[in-house]
Amino acid sequence: MITSTTGPQPADFADVRATNLAVVLRFVREHAPCSRADIASSTGLNKATVSSLIADLIDRRMVRETGLTENRVGRPATMLVLDGSSYVAIGVEINVDYVCAVATDLAGERLLTWRRSFSAGVPVNQGVAAVAAIIRRVVNRMIKQDRQVLGLTVALPALVDVAGTVRIAPNLGWHDADLAGDLAKALRDPGFTIQVDNDANLGALAEQRFGAHSGAGDLVYLTGEMGVGAGVILDGRLRRGGLGYSGEIGHVQLDADGPECRCGRRGCLEAMAGIGAVLRRRDPSPAEIEVEIEEVVRSARAGDEATLATLAAVGTHLGRGVSVIANLLNPEVVILGGYYVPLAPWLLPPVRAEVADRAIAPESGGCEVVASTLGYDAPALGGAAMVLDSVDSGRLPGGTS
Amino acid sequence: MITSTTGPQPADFADVRATNLAVVLRFVREHAPCSRADIASSTGLNKATVSSLIADLIDRRMVRETGLTENRVGRPATMLVLDGSSYVAIGVEINVDYVCAVATDLAGERLLTWRRSFSAGVPVNQGVAAVAAIIRRVVNRMIKQDRQVLGLTVALPALVDVAGTVRIAPNLGWHDADLAGDLAKALRDPGFTIQVDNDANLGALAEQRFGAHSGAGDLVYLTGEMGVGAGVILDGRLRRGGLGYSGEIGHVQLDADGPECRCGRRGCLEAMAGIGAVLRRRDPSPAEIEVEIEEVVRSARAGDEATLATLAAVGTHLGRGVSVIANLLNPEVVILGGYYVPLAPWLLPPVRAEVADRAIAPESGGCEVVASTLGYDAPALGGAAMVLDSVDSGRLPGGTS
Repeated sequence: MITSTTGPQPADFADVRATNLAVVLRFVREHAPCSRADIASSTGLNKATVSSLIADLIDRRMVRETGLTENRVGRPATMLVLDGSSYVAIGVEINVDYVCAVATDLAGERLLTWRRSFSAGVPVNQGVAAVAAIIRRVVNRMIKQDRQVLGLTVALPALVDVAGTVRIAPNLGWHDADLAGDLAKALRDPGFTIQVDNDANLGALAEQRFGAHSGAGDLVYLTGEMGVGAGVILDGRLRRGGLGYSGEIGHVQLDADGPECRCGRRGCLEAMAGIGAVLRRRDPSPAEIEVEIEEVVRSARAGDEATLATLAAVGTHLGRGVSVIANLLNPEVVILGGYYVPLAPWLLPPVRAEVADRAIAPESGGCEVVASTLGYDAPALGGAAMVLDSVDSGRLPGGTS
Repeated sequence: MITSTTGPQPADFADVRATNLAVVLRFVREHAPCSRADIASSTGLNKATVSSLIADLIDRRMVRETGLTENRVGRPATMLVLDGSSYVAIGVEINVDYVCAVATDLAGERLLTWRRSFSAGVPVNQGVAAVAAIIRRVVNRMIKQDRQVLGLTVALPALVDVAGTVRIAPNLGWHDADLAGDLAKALRDPGFTIQVDNDANLGALAEQRFGAHSGAGDLVYLTGEMGVGAGVILDGRLRRGGLGYSGEIGHVQLDADGPECRCGRRGCLEAMAGIGAVLRRRDPSPAEIEVEIEEVVRSARAGDEATLATLAAVGTHLGRGVSVIANLLNPEVVILGGYYVPLAPWLLPPVRAEVADRAIAPESGGCEVVASTLGYDAPALGGAAMVLDSVDSGRLPGGTS
């Protein structure tokens, strides 16, 4: 038996128009301002087809004509751009100490970024109520701007299966929760799709769409939180594994005699290179992590030797974890996210040295290690990116066709 | 920037026929004997198109009509099968102590399996001459059967970059060799494509096409040789990473105080769970490995305690390596190949116990660990599979259209 993804699929002519709409939309996203003639010559679609597709996209208020025309010989061409005024994609991250919501327009421009405190450890129904209240306010704000919600994705530090069930979220204390269904109920069936995904997966999608290495087909995003998780993009797509549980790098055992990990074992990557190791405490209070990390940054800047030694050790351990990823997956880039971002000036040198030392391929297989340019918002932003990805794949809202 | 693989591609009508030929060919491969009507109803292509495509495939001698007809009401339908008589796909594995060549017909039926001794350590040009001599004899044999060679793929234990260059083959002593080009020259431009790939990658392709878990979209194959490498299939396709170096699991460090590894470090997976660890010697003579492994099997069967203890320890170490793969990639199945196959009765229990213990996801994320059913031939067979994959992807030989 050959799986359905190993070869070409039959060309279904009924889908051709939807596919071509999405192709044109993506072209405008990447090349705006551009003319109908640009689209035709680059996509291979004929001009009449392009005009018809553009008319449809204008009708759906996804593309608009600008006043601009192209400077060239012959009849001037009206230039097209994405219409940022009509739609919104929403991403929400639930973390141990905060909820972050972001909204972007169809072009990916940021419309809103909210951060609200949140207490891990509340039961799922209380968490759902709190998060739904935030979502409701975001949605209302967007509706007042006359925008239609394209969809919403919730990121959280959890094993989320391919069906979207939150199987285990150890740091939130939740398990086997239909979070998307519960949120839809709390929002009284809001008329847009709600999805739930692992925070590292969504961080990777954010990097792919909005990050400094967005062109990379093979990219791994590492969350730098209490836990350490990976979002794995290979050949341009998130790879979730058979049941959706890929990316669990946090419990690779680095040292059988190392410090105790929250999983009960000793010397896991998470115990030796998670944020707890930076703060030298196994269970720092979630609410205080950000403040304490700022203090670590100040101490490191001031040249405090104990702090510098801790960061060097954490960087070395993190580098061992990254080298496993580099050797097994050969990504073009591993991007450190979350709390690793402010610590990057001290972590990156030992991480890179360890990867260079342990990579089997010549020149580390070309694998770069960098800090995220998206900061703490990456998972929420990735939630919005996932919504835009689904539009780019041909699931267009509304319109006449 | 969005990479070209994140969304739909423009429908290129010029490619539609080639795509549909490949779709029909794959359908016949999977469902033969089948009728034109079966193909039409399952693929969504109309009957006239299917008849035209089948006529083309018959013309290319890739499909043939059988004498059989379908038992049903109305006009009897002539049944179609793949034509196994006209083509051959060839795979060759170069290993430290042998060269293995296999040939299959278009349907994947084995036509030939040859195994010849080979001495690692000879310079590339001598190796190329020896392998070319074997290939020449295989090709001549096939030409006498009136078969056209669809292509040939060479497997070897090496880092092979995406361009096909053998960057480093430590156990063969080769580096930076254009093996495909050298073989083509030695064969005086034989008129078929020669490709080169890592043995673990090709083992994975063999499992995907011919193995007991061929339906799995997410599958990892582990070579059990002097080295331990992984071939990674996710979402139905081999994932090579940015430069082609994925799958290097062999030097994950399990124990900083462990035995010395050939890489210079201590306690690598390869040093603790490679075949050298089974034989309790760092550098067993390649020519004797197979004989010595047979001896280990005899001792284990006889209940020799030292042997059983060694295998239990190797299995535990191997399980730690497999658990890294299970956690990071969440495959449906990890398949142990090479010399692990005869040792599987003793290795599998501790490997599975370790994976169950160390997997973060519930029920090990559904990850099974099994022994290959393809034995030592898997990488060579994977070479033939890669050739058939390229036909399935639409690169059809000859014909009139």
